[in-house]
Amino acid sequence: MSRAVAGIIGGMGPAATVELLQRIIARTAATDDAEHVHVLLESNPRIPSRLAHLLDRSGPDPTPELVRVARNLEAGGATFLAMPCNTAHHYAGAIVAAVGIPLLDMVRLAVTRLCTLGAGGRVGLLASSAVHDTRLYADALAPHGMRVVMPARQHEVMALILGVKRGDASDGARAGLEALAAELGRDCDAILIACTELSVLATGMTMPVPVVDALDELTDAIIAAAG
Amino acid sequence: MSRAVAGIIGGMGPAATVELLQRIIARTAATDDAEHVHVLLESNPRIPSRLAHLLDRSGPDPTPELVRVARNLEAGGATFLAMPCNTAHHYAGAIVAAVGIPLLDMVRLAVTRLCTLGAGGRVGLLASSAVHDTRLYADALAPHGMRVVMPARQHEVMALILGVKRGDASDGARAGLEALAAELGRDCDAILIACTELSVLATGMTMPVPVVDALDELTDAIIAAAG
Repeated sequence: MSRAVAGIIGGMGPAATVELLQRIIARTAATDDAEHVHVLLESNPRIPSRLAHLLDRSGPDPTPELVRVARNLEAGGATFLAMPCNTAHHYAGAIVAAVGIPLLDMVRLAVTRLCTLGAGGRVGLLASSAVHDTRLYADALAPHGMRVVMPARQHEVMALILGVKRGDASDGARAGLEALAAELGRDCDAILIACTELSVLATGMTMPVPVVDALDELTDAIIAAAG
Repeated sequence: MSRAVAGIIGGMGPAATVELLQRIIARTAATDDAEHVHVLLESNPRIPSRLAHLLDRSGPDPTPELVRVARNLEAGGATFLAMPCNTAHHYAGAIVAAVGIPLLDMVRLAVTRLCTLGAGGRVGLLASSAVHDTRLYADALAPHGMRVVMPARQHEVMALILGVKRGDASDGARAGLEALAAELGRDCDAILIACTELSVLATGMTMPVPVVDALDELTDAIIAAAG
């Protein structure tokens, strides 16, 4: 049995964290409890809002609490880290600098997947407005000749994200995301789901262009790293 | 904000652990990430099989690893513990003795709920054969004038439990549990779901007699303890 332990920096939001755990279980070929991934999770509601810090400039910097959680997971036995929140990857550098174990970088994993697909240069980005503002994916895609296409109705994307954080993962919310993705798909070569709240809504979505869900890439990387 | 941190001794099995996290989220009245329960989870595939130890006498005693996980969660900041596995409560005494924080005892919580219901003396017990063999619930119910009624087809109950551990939470499995519960319900005053793998299958089950799901009682106790 592998001695790897996945340390999950979670709670951003809680439903997205559980979605990751579910995908890890579903994609692990296991016949009994003993064959599953060893997970250490801190789902922490005290991590300050990334949206408030980056968009409104109204809230405190979440870096200190993110670093505290990362160190707590390392002290508890985690051999690598993962963070099921795209926006929080804005702070990934500070986390990596504070611990002695690697962080599976969801942004890098998603970009690598888009490169492998070779779908084309226009990537429709379904993400929080903070991810757009910080150019988290735009800057990561540019060296590979890809550029971000933003949804025309970004405010509706944000409403869906905040809805999931309030507990709304209804069929109506799923249909809303599918409609936004279909509209976006007309102007791009691939769609990237780069907000884990949207990942909660996106299961089973079919589109005329290839769809990459960053949370799927993180899931597969965790299973591979867990051996 | 409450400073309480729920320490979850998980992985027995992984799907049941995620079911608990989902129920905590669904039953928490929250409008944003910050209002959710602070959870520290170790989902640990190295906890030896409780069934192999108690039923077959073939496997190692899980107590040392359960104690290690409990102490790890305490060291990581958990202010109380919970264990989403009924069978593992056979070892609860050793865990409580090894840490300085309380364990929310799922067996005691479920029995209290049955007492409050006042449904009658015959409790149909849907649980692992190890729970029946160790009289985990039989001995806890007896002082309250209640006795356990065992399903006629206990081997089919076990097949459903092992199925969930293999990843089978299909509609067929759910229908199988409902049929077993309906048959059991004819000979008893209430049904107790006392295996968290069966809890995974039991969502939305309607029965002619009251149904208590031990995992629901643990969920509510965690939310109450988290303040």
